[in-house]
Amino acid sequence: MDCIFCKIIAGDIHCSKVYEDALFIAFLDIRPVHKGHVLIVPKKHFLNVFDTPDEEAEAIYKVAKKISGAVMKASGCDGINIVQNNNAAAGQEVFHSHLHIIHRYDNDKLRFASIHKEYDSLDEMGEMAEKVKEAL
Amino acid sequence: MDCIFCKIIAGDIHCSKVYEDALFIAFLDIRPVHKGHVLIVPKKHFLNVFDTPDEEAEAIYKVAKKISGAVMKASGCDGINIVQNNNAAAGQEVFHSHLHIIHRYDNDKLRFASIHKEYDSLDEMGEMAEKVKEAL
Repeated sequence: MDCIFCKIIAGDIHCSKVYEDALFIAFLDIRPVHKGHVLIVPKKHFLNVFDTPDEEAEAIYKVAKKISGAVMKASGCDGINIVQNNNAAAGQEVFHSHLHIIHRYDNDKLRFASIHKEYDSLDEMGEMAEKVKEAL
Repeated sequence: MDCIFCKIIAGDIHCSKVYEDALFIAFLDIRPVHKGHVLIVPKKHFLNVFDTPDEEAEAIYKVAKKISGAVMKASGCDGINIVQNNNAAAGQEVFHSHLHIIHRYDNDKLRFASIHKEYDSLDEMGEMAEKVKEAL
């Protein structure tokens, strides 16, 4: 097993742990956006959202809520981004599923999506929506 | 009620809907990162992660998984960011809770966190982790 998160979960690599339950562990990202940036990591090894088992899918957002509140209180921040990068194209760097809890401050100048596009028409939007609906 | 998402849910404002169940509606963001960018919106009005009721908290990630898979299939993209901005400091613009499902392409040049910090020491990390643990 060459997964760094599995090694952390097994206790073979140190982490700055903030939370643990039967399904998840949460610890500080060593390359934080702001210091105190937390990762929520399922103990079971799977890649990302696409192959999340039901048990973890039902529990993870409640953990995210709990950790977000704690980070808010501990840091005195003004907001929180919850981010999951799925696949390398989306910025995933460790290929063991995880959520980022990133605390934010007023005017911290971070931008999480710097470019926005415009639809040419409502029809174009409708066609896009149809494609997604058909793929459900 | 002056909430644009509540008006969409009530059917008073048009949306390009892709999904609906008892708890959530999903439709295209009118200001997409890439065209086809979906928002998952709880039908109940609440601000964001901090005040999410248990029922929605248990269900939302399964919806995110379903929509992410459909967007992947419909768009032929290479990855997906799941993002929730909580509070204005984190980029929240509509103050009715929602998740962004943002599809990504290899080399699309988007950066979702452009700056990373470094901890001075393991001790500094440990102290940070303690603060969060105490706030749980």
